[in-house]
Amino acid sequence: MSYFYFEHIHTSKRSRARVGKIHTPHGVIDTPNFVGVGTHGTLKTLDNTLVESIGLQLMFCNTYHLMLQPGTEVVKKAGGLHNFIQRKMPIITDSGGFQVFSLAYGSVADELKSKGCKKTDGMVLKITEDGVLFRSYRDGSKMLLTPETSIGAQKDLGADIMICFDELPPYHIDPKKLKKSLDRTHRWEKRSLDAHKANPNNQALYAVVHGGIDPELRRISCEYLSSLDFDGFSIGGSLGKTKQEMHTMLSTVMPRLPENKPNHLLGIGDLESIDMCVPLGIDTFDSSYPTRAARHGVLLTSQGNLKTTKASNAANFGPIEEGCTCFTCKKFSLAYIHHLFKANEITGLTLATIHNLHFMVRLMERYREKILNDEI
Amino acid sequence: MSYFYFEHIHTSKRSRARVGKIHTPHGVIDTPNFVGVGTHGTLKTLDNTLVESIGLQLMFCNTYHLMLQPGTEVVKKAGGLHNFIQRKMPIITDSGGFQVFSLAYGSVADELKSKGCKKTDGMVLKITEDGVLFRSYRDGSKMLLTPETSIGAQKDLGADIMICFDELPPYHIDPKKLKKSLDRTHRWEKRSLDAHKANPNNQALYAVVHGGIDPELRRISCEYLSSLDFDGFSIGGSLGKTKQEMHTMLSTVMPRLPENKPNHLLGIGDLESIDMCVPLGIDTFDSSYPTRAARHGVLLTSQGNLKTTKASNAANFGPIEEGCTCFTCKKFSLAYIHHLFKANEITGLTLATIHNLHFMVRLMERYREKILNDEI
Repeated sequence: MSYFYFEHIHTSKRSRARVGKIHTPHGVIDTPNFVGVGTHGTLKTLDNTLVESIGLQLMFCNTYHLMLQPGTEVVKKAGGLHNFIQRKMPIITDSGGFQVFSLAYGSVADELKSKGCKKTDGMVLKITEDGVLFRSYRDGSKMLLTPETSIGAQKDLGADIMICFDELPPYHIDPKKLKKSLDRTHRWEKRSLDAHKANPNNQALYAVVHGGIDPELRRISCEYLSSLDFDGFSIGGSLGKTKQEMHTMLSTVMPRLPENKPNHLLGIGDLESIDMCVPLGIDTFDSSYPTRAARHGVLLTSQGNLKTTKASNAANFGPIEEGCTCFTCKKFSLAYIHHLFKANEITGLTLATIHNLHFMVRLMERYREKILNDEI
Repeated sequence: MSYFYFEHIHTSKRSRARVGKIHTPHGVIDTPNFVGVGTHGTLKTLDNTLVESIGLQLMFCNTYHLMLQPGTEVVKKAGGLHNFIQRKMPIITDSGGFQVFSLAYGSVADELKSKGCKKTDGMVLKITEDGVLFRSYRDGSKMLLTPETSIGAQKDLGADIMICFDELPPYHIDPKKLKKSLDRTHRWEKRSLDAHKANPNNQALYAVVHGGIDPELRRISCEYLSSLDFDGFSIGGSLGKTKQEMHTMLSTVMPRLPENKPNHLLGIGDLESIDMCVPLGIDTFDSSYPTRAARHGVLLTSQGNLKTTKASNAANFGPIEEGCTCFTCKKFSLAYIHHLFKANEITGLTLATIHNLHFMVRLMERYREKILNDEI
């Protein structure tokens, strides 16, 4: 049996929603599942033993950030990322491309607000067929990111799942340039695959489907990438301005990906998107939303979002949510969490993050149950 | 047997250093011991179950801060502070006086630097025989703190040990005014005791020895307060500009306190002071130093302080201190802690705080061992 494979368990009779298990060298990821984001090798405010005890089966770390701090060579010396950050369960890393190109173009949100790339202008020095030359925001040094250096960095990190180096085109790009970008991304992905195959290291490599908001290009991307020997497929790039546009585009993409391989929706994992995309057959979602929301005092509950600092919580001595089995709810009252936030205590951020992460883990369990019962 | 008493176990043959046990309704405090400061009901970055698992036997909470947020009436509704913050082990609260007078006069350090009370000028509106009228820094409302309201607030909180309401005179005060301040403090302490005795509530009450840097006034204070039925004695006010002056003054004070009752040195708990004061017979020390140092990346070790972000720690894959049995050292490398601090991750603050608090608990264990062996 391979060190990495997707076990397909059930597809709903009502949709493309499916339940499976991704087997990795560091254990199983039940799908569909939520992937917590630990950019620098930690989910903000938590330590990794706590994250594992909450049951988060897959953690997303950012190669770009880890290249700049502490440097992937330090992580390699530590025996790889699992060892360095003390996580026994699976890890996925990205290529670094997303962050570098975000610096160049700004985020889609920035573009839509016409902020463009003003703030970070000049960080990307040159984009060529070879790759991207950029300047480190930490020490100003020049760094070259190519398919080969990205895969090399991800080999140093040693995550269970790696992602191909790709170009993230800006949302406002003319169709011809988008086609050119896609072609280059495909060449970069092929080079990523070749670099990976030269030294598999028990790691898996996911392709990134691109093509922006052009359905035809998305189809081409699915077709080309499916023809190569990737272990899984992620969906990247802009999927439109609205959730409905995203849904429409994913309805085009998902049936065109190999059913026997796992897929991942990059950087999207808010509750509404998960609810829309599980029926399309998405296996994993990464997002910093639940942990960031926690730090802003927004608690996730089955009754909707709860603002910690709301005055009426000051004397609510029940848990955040009745029946919740997370550490925070078992031990502490909403009144105490409210107090910690009002008093600007870091402890409040930690307790809120524990709750929100637990909520996501339980939410995805319930999605899997529903799919198994053909309720979705 | 009373709900609160001091069990004297051993006094060193070489000094006044002594080992004992303070018995409280929430368990035993082995002495001498370090008292962690959890101003708002939490040691910064930690949750209270973690604090208990580290073995911190006594936690110091600030009545002033808890009066303003969440309000002692909320804590009372929650069933008291232990319940509200989920701590099963002993808690000590202060009277609120220290903070109110610090606002009026500034800290001793401020005075010595001639900063005076500029920043917070006007927060204290009026000091009378009755008490202190001040303005809440949170909502601007007027609040009156008197011996009776302070004890009332501390009754709402329900800590195992309370502290009398006292006046904190400024360091630069002329002798006549200091004598007047001491007389008033004594009247306030007697009123605190009366208010306490009217409703003992299974709580203990410590007096506060005052008299500033005048040995004769300190002697008078010891004599007067010892004549009243307090459960223990704390030492407050200015003890001088230097550690040596503090040592000299405590050498005058300590032999004048009843040996059969516990004592506490208020707000002093740095390593050097503890080392100087344990031989004088101090039982408990509270200080935010170890936890604040942790958040500033200063780690306590038996080899001295270690600056987390020192470049040479970047690839040090051993623990903070070899042989340390704290959670942080058992799980994570110094290189990882270094990385978390460089990446501004809150998780680093938490892991460093765990280590420093564990260090203090172990340090005090070793002091007790040494006293039992007459080595101090």
